[in-house]
Amino acid sequence: MLYLVHMVVDIPATVPADEAARIKAEEKAYSQALQRSGKWPHLWRVVGEYANYSVFDVASNDELHDTLSQLPLFPFMKITVTPLAKHPSSIV
Amino acid sequence: MLYLVHMVVDIPATVPADEAARIKAEEKAYSQALQRSGKWPHLWRVVGEYANYSVFDVASNDELHDTLSQLPLFPFMKITVTPLAKHPSSIV
Amino acid sequence: MLYLVHMVVDIPATVPADEAARIKAEEKAYSQALQRSGKWPHLWRVVGEYANYSVFDVASNDELHDTLSQLPLFPFMKITVTPLAKHPSSIV
Amino acid sequence: MLYLVHMVVDIPATVPADEAARIKAEEKAYSQALQRSGKWPHLWRVVGEYANYSVFDVASNDELHDTLSQLPLFPFMKITVTPLAKHPSSIV
Amino acid sequence: MLYLVHMVVDIPATVPADEAARIKAEEKAYSQALQRSGKWPHLWRVVGEYANYSVFDVASNDELHDTLSQLPLFPFMKITVTPLAKHPSSIV
Amino acid sequence: MLYLVHMVVDIPATVPADEAARIKAEEKAYSQALQRSGKWPHLWRVVGEYANYSVFDVASNDELHDTLSQLPLFPFMKITVTPLAKHPSSIV
Amino acid sequence: MLYLVHMVVDIPATVPADEAARIKAEEKAYSQALQRSGKWPHLWRVVGEYANYSVFDVASNDELHDTLSQLPLFPFMKITVTPLAKHPSSIV
Amino acid sequence: MLYLVHMVVDIPATVPADEAARIKAEEKAYSQALQRSGKWPHLWRVVGEYANYSVFDVASNDELHDTLSQLPLFPFMKITVTPLAKHPSSIV
Amino acid sequence: MLYLVHMVVDIPATVPADEAARIKAEEKAYSQALQRSGKWPHLWRVVGEYANYSVFDVASNDELHDTLSQLPLFPFMKITVTPLAKHPSSIV
Amino acid sequence: MLYLVHMVVDIPATVPADEAARIKAEEKAYSQALQRSGKWPHLWRVVGEYANYSVFDVASNDELHDTLSQLPLFPFMKITVTPLAKHPSSIV
Repeated sequence: MLYLVHMVVDIPATVPADEAARIKAEEKAYSQALQRSGKWPHLWRVVGEYANYSVFDVASNDELHDTLSQLPLFPFMKITVTPLAKHPSSIV
Repeated sequence: MLYLVHMVVDIPATVPADEAARIKAEEKAYSQALQRSGKWPHLWRVVGEYANYSVFDVASNDELHDTLSQLPLFPFMKITVTPLAKHPSSIV
Repeated sequence: MLYLVHMVVDIPATVPADEAARIKAEEKAYSQALQRSGKWPHLWRVVGEYANYSVFDVASNDELHDTLSQLPLFPFMKITVTPLAKHPSSIV
Repeated sequence: MLYLVHMVVDIPATVPADEAARIKAEEKAYSQALQRSGKWPHLWRVVGEYANYSVFDVASNDELHDTLSQLPLFPFMKITVTPLAKHPSSIV
Repeated sequence: MLYLVHMVVDIPATVPADEAARIKAEEKAYSQALQRSGKWPHLWRVVGEYANYSVFDVASNDELHDTLSQLPLFPFMKITVTPLAKHPSSIV
Repeated sequence: MLYLVHMVVDIPATVPADEAARIKAEEKAYSQALQRSGKWPHLWRVVGEYANYSVFDVASNDELHDTLSQLPLFPFMKITVTPLAKHPSSIV
Repeated sequence: MLYLVHMVVDIPATVPADEAARIKAEEKAYSQALQRSGKWPHLWRVVGEYANYSVFDVASNDELHDTLSQLPLFPFMKITVTPLAKHPSSIV
Repeated sequence: MLYLVHMVVDIPATVPADEAARIKAEEKAYSQALQRSGKWPHLWRVVGEYANYSVFDVASNDELHDTLSQLPLFPFMKITVTPLAKHPSSIV
Repeated sequence: MLYLVHMVVDIPATVPADEAARIKAEEKAYSQALQRSGKWPHLWRVVGEYANYSVFDVASNDELHDTLSQLPLFPFMKITVTPLAKHPSSIV
Repeated sequence: MLYLVHMVVDIPATVPADEAARIKAEEKAYSQALQRSGKWPHLWRVVGEYANYSVFDVASNDELHDTLSQLPLFPFMKITVTPLAKHPSSIV
């Protein structure tokens, strides 16, 4: 099942630089594992913003929430989830 | 080059039903030709809305505008375009 | 799987009264059948508005979209869908 | 009497981790007691957000405010309350 | 129980003048009866707008919805309801 | 002359607890004196929020500003003022 | 007493041109009489919009509402009223 | 003097096609004359929208309003004007 | 040339009280010099807010930006500028 | 390819003055190099705000994101990107 997820990241200046770098590295590893699993098929950078649009392919709302809430950067993110369905004109 | 495009469709009640059906059929044909060409790789229905999120893969802003403005439903659409770039964590 | 769905209804004055009444009757029958099936477990009126908050229990995003888009009042509705997950403090 | 309540939680980074954990534990106990009492019949997690939608069943506006304002996390919450009424199509 | 209700009225130009006048007269009579009953204790005009702020004193959410939805001008109103509670500093 | 005033209070976590308590006590005394004077006839708590709706009855815009800007909690408030007039249907 | 008033005019295309011209002429005469009386000391056009910012100097909220609601263009206006007070740095 | 002007065009479906075409032709001629005069140095299409961003170079606010309000499409436009100044880092 | 300028002031609690007082005194002197020069003809307090509406009369956009950006409180202000033109009904 | 970019700068008070000055100097050098290269053809100050509107001329979305995300002030900016296309009435 597909979901469009918009993530805007805002790490407060009060978070020490090394800690921020550590969390970002964890985020990258976590994300790439999910991408390889097929659960995170699309991850695009929004031009000009520390934000991304992603598409997740998971079995349920609960699985999506577990996946997102375990993102290392989750505490610093504003996330919006839009459930997607098959479009009647889609050839896929 | 990738763009995320959000299209919300609102056909006024004053448009006769048969004309609306004709335009929708043209829209489907136009869209499926673009999808087969690879320029419109993703087309998803937003659950609960007469709206879609799409991803276009075109060579320039101008090509994207020409493509969108020739959508048969264009006069009845509110369109928002978000330019996308490669995400540093993306494995694609 | 649960979704919170907010529906705001706005039937234009140009729709003849008898036609509006017919559509509303169809809507009631359609809704009550879904409620009896267990797919529409909650339907509440928003005080002071021609709007409701509902909870749907369906198997997928696609099933939810099919269910909502076949609401007789769908063309006159602004719908917002919020996917829900189990809350860690919920005793249910 | 039913109310839909939307709670968005934002605990500032300046709150020490152990204190935050203590408050969250109190919140869980407080919430589960109310759920068992029947005053808080529904508590759902909003997918992707540190937020919930809840339904409260209490006798008055004043009782609802007392209940909400004594939530341990109340100082860190943005709360929106929507009073609900019986929907004419509801079979409950 | 008290509720603050904000009503913004917008009668489309397509409604014939005499019909609009009839509905407004019914609205005035309906409102004044409720005011005399004590259920509508405050009714103020918002300066510069065809809108009012009112305070209703009714027994439940359901009673408030029934009261508001039977306003003759209800089909032409955008209504927002804010439930009120006793303020700890109020001397009333 | 009547004004509807919406006050949303947000005391930053950086303000020491005892200082916050002192300011709140001053606010209560200041407010109750004005209520007894008849200048602040209505003060209601917005359910679920650290906010209130109030009605002030003062002689001028300037008097209202002086009154509001001397609220002890003024530096921590977001205030919106709506001037009110007599409603043609009001029986008061 | 001073008020800043923002008026945005939107005359629907369904209003016949000659009727619109008549109403605009009445509006000009009504406005210029009030300007000469000193009650409407400032009237400025918002660049690029069929809108104005005005300052009214009247004795009360009620007088302002009567003045504004009798504007010939009132039914076609979205009006926002901001009550003004003397600024402590003003040399006037 | 420079102004950034955002124009969103919305021609209602009730305007006959030939009349709309006539107005658009007048708009093009009017705009191109101003461009040649140097008063309208930049005119860009917003991708995916019947809208443009323009830069005007005129002597005053009044001249800008006269210029914009005489656009043939002015009655069908929502215009936002942002006055611009020289940026301290600009090399022009 | 006239501009309506809305200034909302928000001095963070982290700014020491004496420094804030110093800046406010500088602001008052700066503002009163401009008022005496005729460039700042109107300065009004927005009732209930630490904000003002002002009218500036300057020769150009650049002069206005220089004037505003040198306000001592500029770093703590959210400023919105609306260019004004002569209204066709104005008798001034 | 052209993009309109709106940048609003907000450097928190917690950033030491000398560090802020250093970053601003780097920003100016970085920007002027890009302007000389022709990739940043327009840079205008928004009157009254610590913000600018710019036009970038680059080969792709990715190039724009790389360019913007390497702005020294990027961590303190809210950036909005609007892709532009050739306007059918443009004489350029």
